[in-house]
Amino acid sequence: MTSGEFDLIARLRERLPAGGPRLRVGSGDDAAVTDPAGAAAATTIDALVEGVHFTLPEFPLRAVGRKALAAALSDLAAMGAEPGEAYVALAAPARLGEAELLEIADGLAEVARREHVDVAGGDLTRASELGLCVACVGYERPGTTLVTRAGARPGDVLVVTGELGGAAAGLKLLAGDVQPALDAPTREALLARQLEPRPRIAAGRSLAIAGAGAMIDVSDGLGADAGHLAAASGVTLTIDLERLPLAAGAAAVAGGEGGARELALGGGEDYELLACLPPERLEGAVAEIERAGYRLTAIGEADAGEPGLLRDRDGQRIEPSGFDHMRGSRSGSDSGSGAGSRSDAGSGSP
Amino acid sequence: MTSGEFDLIARLRERLPAGGPRLRVGSGDDAAVTDPAGAAAATTIDALVEGVHFTLPEFPLRAVGRKALAAALSDLAAMGAEPGEAYVALAAPARLGEAELLEIADGLAEVARREHVDVAGGDLTRASELGLCVACVGYERPGTTLVTRAGARPGDVLVVTGELGGAAAGLKLLAGDVQPALDAPTREALLARQLEPRPRIAAGRSLAIAGAGAMIDVSDGLGADAGHLAAASGVTLTIDLERLPLAAGAAAVAGGEGGARELALGGGEDYELLACLPPERLEGAVAEIERAGYRLTAIGEADAGEPGLLRDRDGQRIEPSGFDHMRGSRSGSDSGSGAGSRSDAGSGSP
Repeated sequence: MTSGEFDLIARLRERLPAGGPRLRVGSGDDAAVTDPAGAAAATTIDALVEGVHFTLPEFPLRAVGRKALAAALSDLAAMGAEPGEAYVALAAPARLGEAELLEIADGLAEVARREHVDVAGGDLTRASELGLCVACVGYERPGTTLVTRAGARPGDVLVVTGELGGAAAGLKLLAGDVQPALDAPTREALLARQLEPRPRIAAGRSLAIAGAGAMIDVSDGLGADAGHLAAASGVTLTIDLERLPLAAGAAAVAGGEGGARELALGGGEDYELLACLPPERLEGAVAEIERAGYRLTAIGEADAGEPGLLRDRDGQRIEPSGFDHMRGSRSGSDSGSGAGSRSDAGSGSP
Repeated sequence: MTSGEFDLIARLRERLPAGGPRLRVGSGDDAAVTDPAGAAAATTIDALVEGVHFTLPEFPLRAVGRKALAAALSDLAAMGAEPGEAYVALAAPARLGEAELLEIADGLAEVARREHVDVAGGDLTRASELGLCVACVGYERPGTTLVTRAGARPGDVLVVTGELGGAAAGLKLLAGDVQPALDAPTREALLARQLEPRPRIAAGRSLAIAGAGAMIDVSDGLGADAGHLAAASGVTLTIDLERLPLAAGAAAVAGGEGGARELALGGGEDYELLACLPPERLEGAVAEIERAGYRLTAIGEADAGEPGLLRDRDGQRIEPSGFDHMRGSRSGSDSGSGAGSRSDAGSGSP
């Protein structure tokens, strides 16, 4: 690298918050130095690629920055972790000038400040398409335990935060695929679900405190993510599809309640949290979550049936569906039906 | 994501070592859970992009995997850190099938096993060009302190491990730019410097123990990296260009000693370690490094001159040169002269 590149890195770095209590050496050395102070760490990596996770120019560059960090932080939320540091690799095509790269940095900074994350390191390289890779480190909070996908037990109630299907509906609006009759606030709210996803950090904390035994973020669609949780925990999940908390306006976008449900099941990117907890903990969890400003809805329960199986109230198997990042196509039973077909890809967390 | 993608992820994961003493929850959950057991952590992120850091098909895919992890580990070596976990995001074009992706994983696994790294998480996505992003976490070793770039003091001796210029010479051979008269072992050794870079983990440990006050890995070329160290430490570095430990065969590739020196200064990717230490520590450091199986050469010293300045024995300014990842061109005083012009980019560590 040479002076031009290092100058740009310095200007990008200026935009980004750094300097939390755990950070001993921040961006600018071979590696950042952090002091976890005895806490267990939760670490995740997420890549966002142009044409797969977003398209230009439909996505403002600031939204690309926001989304890259929000998607990685959503994984930490799903562990009930306290966000710590983020490390960002930016691969930028030559057509993007410095002003554009700073817009991406501003999007990263917006989320980093709001969620109290230090951007402690990074890498910058040329590429033919825009890509961001974000690694995030979070920490176990005193008095809580990090929550994996594997701790659901038969008899647990299945709960989900917030509303589903909004991000996929927002993508359809963004792509101009549909022209539904929506009032302006509803339309804006759906677009924001796609362009300004919010990692449910406080909700994850509340669910961990409330005793959630298993948790996952809804990044690939409720069907796929419930399937992961069921498989990791070795339980069957029964989901009451009538009780899914659908985002306002999703039905108008998807041509009815059934379409909105498909967006919820297969659309992904809602970044809500799906968790299992013992039924006697439900009331306390709802109160805890409401204190954190979120809605919590019980949508089903776990039993000792076939591990990994999802079924509806009528006993019908629900096929986990989701966008296939590797094939560029949707698969599963509702293939090509409800959900958007272009870039509605959840950020995978293998 | 859908079953095809998850199956592939599972097959990739099988190839990769995981399960070190710090790893509580490995790949397959929203985030990995690690227990640093009170140690400070060093964390770095590095991206490798096709056409910038490597070209296909000149680079075997296994070498791409090796290089991605080795480059990130080299940053940990430069801190004197003990390698811990790696997190790998793989963006793969459709033209690469499963067998090819498994080759990349095998390259990652080869380095991970040799360097005792757990691959604790990852992400897999489609892209139009091959890209790997690796975040690595290392730990402060008991009885040592992580070494930054900032601790060089006037009077310190400047040392470098191993040999320089070999990786850039290997790249020229790989590209077929030159047809020098080289015996087969020398040629193979130069190619290996490019295709099988070795992070100097043990040397970094030895230098930390020996009392190095500042350290950096030579990824962008000795000129650029010495410049970083000088700037971070606020010292001038005088480098004795006659004493640079040049890789055997580099002169034959570069058309003479002068050309080999330019490869050393500007070529990058040698992944040797450059460090400053008090002169009274030099003898002990050489012995310590030799025990670890490396060569250590004193090539200059630090003084209280202009911060960040590099000069040679005659007092002439050495311009830090290196490949500009953002402009796709080389800059600095030796622009276009000695080093390869295509993809000899160091892996930047802003």
